[in-house]
Amino acid sequence: MIIVKIGGGAAINLDGVARDLAALPSPALVVHGANAARDALAAALGRTKTVVTSVSGYDSVLSDDAAVELLFMAYAGLRNKQVVEALQRAGVNAVGLSGIDGRVVQGRRTSGFRVRDGERVRIVRDRSGKPVSVNRELLATLLAGGYTPVLTVPIADETGAAINSENDDVVALLQHSLGAEAVVQLIEAPGILRDRDDPGSLVTRLSAGELSAWEETAVGRFRRKLHAIRRLIEAGAPWVVVADGRTEHPLADALRGAGTVISADPVRAAVGA
Amino acid sequence: MIIVKIGGGAAINLDGVARDLAALPSPALVVHGANAARDALAAALGRTKTVVTSVSGYDSVLSDDAAVELLFMAYAGLRNKQVVEALQRAGVNAVGLSGIDGRVVQGRRTSGFRVRDGERVRIVRDRSGKPVSVNRELLATLLAGGYTPVLTVPIADETGAAINSENDDVVALLQHSLGAEAVVQLIEAPGILRDRDDPGSLVTRLSAGELSAWEETAVGRFRRKLHAIRRLIEAGAPWVVVADGRTEHPLADALRGAGTVISADPVRAAVGA
Repeated sequence: MIIVKIGGGAAINLDGVARDLAALPSPALVVHGANAARDALAAALGRTKTVVTSVSGYDSVLSDDAAVELLFMAYAGLRNKQVVEALQRAGVNAVGLSGIDGRVVQGRRTSGFRVRDGERVRIVRDRSGKPVSVNRELLATLLAGGYTPVLTVPIADETGAAINSENDDVVALLQHSLGAEAVVQLIEAPGILRDRDDPGSLVTRLSAGELSAWEETAVGRFRRKLHAIRRLIEAGAPWVVVADGRTEHPLADALRGAGTVISADPVRAAVGA
Repeated sequence: MIIVKIGGGAAINLDGVARDLAALPSPALVVHGANAARDALAAALGRTKTVVTSVSGYDSVLSDDAAVELLFMAYAGLRNKQVVEALQRAGVNAVGLSGIDGRVVQGRRTSGFRVRDGERVRIVRDRSGKPVSVNRELLATLLAGGYTPVLTVPIADETGAAINSENDDVVALLQHSLGAEAVVQLIEAPGILRDRDDPGSLVTRLSAGELSAWEETAVGRFRRKLHAIRRLIEAGAPWVVVADGRTEHPLADALRGAGTVISADPVRAAVGA
């Protein structure tokens, strides 16, 4: 089984991914984002993000009820069903699920932000949290029945209520729980770039050791990307491939070694994918 | 197993339905609408319906790509996940599915509308159709696993593409395929009213024979309602209850005989539910 994470960008070639998945010999589990759909919908509805500043000075976007409604519409609704439809049309029997469906991904709500309220400090709790457990039984049943689960946020909190969560955390937990043979991340770039503005700075091969060394010196977006991949390797992924989701055959290209191939095994990394 | 159809009105007491479902001894399958959510979203997005007039003079709302996107967002997204969330919070392990998920409800696309285009007549095909088959295996697997499927439109066409369909048709097909012991329809009225503006005109008991007789003389909305119920009876439903979805305990009230109780068996109809 492989896990395919489809980025939330508008330029991802969903039909290409669907055709590649249809030709895949092994079962797959799909996790997708929907940043572009969410942002477009929020803009069309004239909704702005609510930002709170913690007492320690960090700004955070608050996942309030309106934000969770947007997740329902853009992630679990529009984008999830676009992915499912593309897969169905390609002959893949996809079943789209948010984390609250069958509590397939359940988490713990964050304890809240400490914000200044005049003279006092108060705790603002929002609807976000970290994924903690996966309903393996439901996913195994679907996979055994020949279905391809297509997962997205929101996830369920302890009470079954919907909360926002990071897709990277969901994918790491799925890898930990299900032990996929590989994780493919399809993004709107040729792979991991040393310089995000320079497609020529593509990192083609990376060992787990190099990953850790790089992470120490990297900054910003690049650092977060490396960190997320390191967690996948730590969760037991033998291979992680970060590749371009905009090509004619995004998934087939990735599995042939396009983009950035990260191997948990230093020997395999040295000889290439 | 019972089928619970939750109307698409904004005043339906979802939490009440969820609590009642949690207390139900038999498994249930939920089908819901989302008219209110769809109309509110369309208005907020400034989207208007596309209406075509057929050569025979009938106006039809066209289910174009934008309309299917609205179904994704309002039906499969916002409302489906609100129902799933309410059920999860009440302790019911709900799994929300549109008809394209696992092709759980598959249909046939309508052949199109004949419209006048200047001097010529052309066929306008839209994205709508009639449900034809149900993925019984997937629903049976979910029910056997203790899950409560929560279904809504769109459904899949022959190619796996999403199309709009009438929820009444979906419920009739589910009854035909699954043979539920009862169908409960929760609406924003006390039940079937002879005069929709007069709550005192509630029809409390109705036999299948009376239903047919009434249908012949009824008009408009009332006639459509009676017709949909007659099809449920013909599809083998022993009981159909149409009851108020806005009360404290909508489903429990309905199963105690509130609203309009229609029995396929004239003897049972005479003695009441």
